[in-house]
Amino acid sequence: NTSNRLGFESDNSGEVKLKAINPTTQKELPETFVAATEQEVNKAVQKAQEAWKVYRSTSGTQKAQFLRTIASEIEGLGEQLISRACKESGLPSGRITGERGRTCGQLRLFADLVEAGHWVDAVIDPALPDRKPNPRVDIRRMLQAMGPVVVFTASNFPLAFSTAGGDTASALAAGCPVIVKAHPSHLGTNALISEAILRAAQKCGMPDGVFSNVQDASYAVGTQLVQHPDVKAVAFTGSMRGGMALHKAAMERSEPIPVFAEMGSTNPVFIMPDLLKGDAQKVAQQVTDSVNLGAGQFCTNPGMVLVLDDDYTATFVKSLASTFAEKEASTMLNEGIFKSFEQQKNAFLQEDAVEVTYISPVEKSAWKGFPAVATTTGRALLHNPKLHEEVFGPFTLVIKCKDLSEMKAVASELHGQLTATILGPEEKLIKWNDLANILQEKVGRLIFNGLPTGVEVGYAMQHGGPFPATTDSRFTSVGTDAIKRFARPIAFQNCPDGMLPAALKTNNPLNLVRTVNGEIAQH
Amino acid sequence: NTSNRLGFESDNSGEVKLKAINPTTQKELPETFVAATEQEVNKAVQKAQEAWKVYRSTSGTQKAQFLRTIASEIEGLGEQLISRACKESGLPSGRITGERGRTCGQLRLFADLVEAGHWVDAVIDPALPDRKPNPRVDIRRMLQAMGPVVVFTASNFPLAFSTAGGDTASALAAGCPVIVKAHPSHLGTNALISEAILRAAQKCGMPDGVFSNVQDASYAVGTQLVQHPDVKAVAFTGSMRGGMALHKAAMERSEPIPVFAEMGSTNPVFIMPDLLKGDAQKVAQQVTDSVNLGAGQFCTNPGMVLVLDDDYTATFVKSLASTFAEKEASTMLNEGIFKSFEQQKNAFLQEDAVEVTYISPVEKSAWKGFPAVATTTGRALLHNPKLHEEVFGPFTLVIKCKDLSEMKAVASELHGQLTATILGPEEKLIKWNDLANILQEKVGRLIFNGLPTGVEVGYAMQHGGPFPATTDSRFTSVGTDAIKRFARPIAFQNCPDGMLPAALKTNNPLNLVRTVNGEIAQH
Repeated sequence: NTSNRLGFESDNSGEVKLKAINPTTQKELPETFVAATEQEVNKAVQKAQEAWKVYRSTSGTQKAQFLRTIASEIEGLGEQLISRACKESGLPSGRITGERGRTCGQLRLFADLVEAGHWVDAVIDPALPDRKPNPRVDIRRMLQAMGPVVVFTASNFPLAFSTAGGDTASALAAGCPVIVKAHPSHLGTNALISEAILRAAQKCGMPDGVFSNVQDASYAVGTQLVQHPDVKAVAFTGSMRGGMALHKAAMERSEPIPVFAEMGSTNPVFIMPDLLKGDAQKVAQQVTDSVNLGAGQFCTNPGMVLVLDDDYTATFVKSLASTFAEKEASTMLNEGIFKSFEQQKNAFLQEDAVEVTYISPVEKSAWKGFPAVATTTGRALLHNPKLHEEVFGPFTLVIKCKDLSEMKAVASELHGQLTATILGPEEKLIKWNDLANILQEKVGRLIFNGLPTGVEVGYAMQHGGPFPATTDSRFTSVGTDAIKRFARPIAFQNCPDGMLPAALKTNNPLNLVRTVNGEIAQH
Repeated sequence: NTSNRLGFESDNSGEVKLKAINPTTQKELPETFVAATEQEVNKAVQKAQEAWKVYRSTSGTQKAQFLRTIASEIEGLGEQLISRACKESGLPSGRITGERGRTCGQLRLFADLVEAGHWVDAVIDPALPDRKPNPRVDIRRMLQAMGPVVVFTASNFPLAFSTAGGDTASALAAGCPVIVKAHPSHLGTNALISEAILRAAQKCGMPDGVFSNVQDASYAVGTQLVQHPDVKAVAFTGSMRGGMALHKAAMERSEPIPVFAEMGSTNPVFIMPDLLKGDAQKVAQQVTDSVNLGAGQFCTNPGMVLVLDDDYTATFVKSLASTFAEKEASTMLNEGIFKSFEQQKNAFLQEDAVEVTYISPVEKSAWKGFPAVATTTGRALLHNPKLHEEVFGPFTLVIKCKDLSEMKAVASELHGQLTATILGPEEKLIKWNDLANILQEKVGRLIFNGLPTGVEVGYAMQHGGPFPATTDSRFTSVGTDAIKRFARPIAFQNCPDGMLPAALKTNNPLNLVRTVNGEIAQH
């Protein structure tokens, strides 16, 4: 029986037993996992709270070593991890191997970030004792960890958005202990990664409770975690329903706390007729590849393709039908996601003014995402709010707008999105500048001549966006700025140098880039 | 009849008439103000939404000119403004004159900030076409305005936290149109300042709708504003009850939006026995002055004073009784605040284990804050949650702890606070480092050898703190970083240089400090 990990302790006193299911075979995997009890959840949070008192002021160098050791420990799991993650997710080993690279790269990027230390955004307004009419007192501010963070692992990225994914990496980097609520679809993957994190914590002398991992297949454990008074923030990537349930629970606490829920989007792609004129077939292939990537189970697969209704578009739609027909259906992550995709896809196809362009025949016995593409009009989108909903899986809706003005009207009615994309000949893009301005109001990331799938983990990335894409558009869940979700500013007024955190001491022992008197001061 | 201002239009078609009351005379002031109707509120928001489309990309230089012109227009109101604000608030003219200076200084500080432009936090990860295994695409990110902002003016700062106060200044600086819901206590002051803002908007060619002002004495207008789908953020300074009602309304929207509510705190002051040994009388005077500043109606007046229970403390408490006795009661802001103070103060004094140290005799006919100081024990605070509540007015509670360990236990049980303060001989402060560490977990600003009243408007200020001090500890409502509340990051991927905002163009036409490849690049 695989236990819950409450810091360095294991506990499996619970009576509810869980099994992961292989979506390819639709059979239970043999290993048994024990759901966490209420007492175990309390213990995990209590340990996190104790650990926080030490971990919040652990140096950047030590946190960096911890994060890098986690990456090495994950790599050390070797083929065992790849094989387990494939079995639990139905994803091919190439994808999982790539995702492991991304996960470890992400951990190392956050290690670099906290080792450099500039992220704490140190700002110093030195005393001005002679200022008139009143002297100015010395004030110094920096970001500090907020407290224990709960991370819900995502179904669609068993490594990169899961147990040691971007949320955990950024929270640990900020100085927050993490309690992971494992996704029931990949309990074995989660257990392996949890052990790797805990081995790293022990090797690096991190406090007991800096990381815990609790298992559950119901909502009980998650709800208890979000409502626990010592939990200070929550990170979640998944469905709108799941994200909003957590958000509501967090807001109903006597002390409301932030829930960073990334709830996906339709990622509309706008295509200029000048591009389709020459390249309809090539563009159709690129769109088809992006829609079908990961069986359409990314937050960023394009679920809407907006075009003008002309002859080039007719060719483009025909091409889409044939490029979609060449796609093989892939196993989806779990039965729930498969069923939901089939139901949502079919509901879309039955809406008025929606025409099926291509639908892959369904094998009844498989949990596969059978690709489909459909066509509708800008007018239909303006009048039918259902057509704005996300269909999670390999499906996209081509929206034929009668002119640019209707296309802009549709753009103005879009929900908040993680991304929007404009494809067109480089020299002609400027003609759609008005559209680009409308889209800026709707998105976290505006893409030109690329596709939304593939989210670079860097300094400039914004993976977020206005509601309902996320619950807080001011933060990102990918890239270095994700750390900002878990820290808050503290100002020290007239504090003796010996009591200041290193980042704020006058002689700048950490060699940070700081803002002094409103000016950036390089060391 | 003084109208609501819906952008550059005036409207007073409403049937509900309002009058401001002079708290000193307890009489209505003669001028009549008209409450906004539902249609007027909708029009104000609609105009703000239209204005946003232009104002969001107005240059830093133009916004700076607008903010500076507002400051000049306010100064141009001269004695008329001072006299009206004194009549409506009961505050003395020296205080109002000082507050006008702060308000105009704040507007000019935000002007400097947006003129310099660095606040948009431009981050550029240039393309790496030769990177292996995958090329990196060009991504650039900056902060952009979120949309129309609703500002509720505060009762206790009729200028600095009101119509053209820090919330309005920072929202306009960010590029967000503002709709002000005026506080019913100072309708005349609000009308004067609104006219000044609108004159500045017209002089500077700002779009109609960049500022509106609606009046009301009920909750109807405020609730309608918070629930309007085009409103994207709310700022509020006031009571816990008011702030949480707005927060709840904002969270129950189909699209939740952030409410930045600064709801005050008890601002505990911890005093080392070594300080009282020599200086009990002087410290008592300083504490008494800070408690009574502005009739105790600041967010930062110290409502708790923590000391060790020894002979020095006995002297200190005696001194407090005499320094408090020398304070004259001042008129409070309005009848509601006066009544609530009397009721809360008396409730505190009747709690078990609370002893009255000094209470000023009450004149039945005046709405004055009659100062009081009381004493209790650390033990009582640990067992009676009521003693943690804020009493808004000139009252403080001295808490005698039996030893440092009990004092730390009390510190650990504190609610979230805007500030905490440690007073002690400079060379001995380090002895209380553990206490300082506990307090960091509780506050936005930690003060040494100063008092919490007096919030510097600078780059390093953090005026915020964990709940219930505010609804979001990651932001400040005073100082330049207040602008961050009203902006969100947008990333541009592979965007043609001609379509990028100036802040992100490759040749850096605005001369901004930007982060390039993760390193700060100075111009």
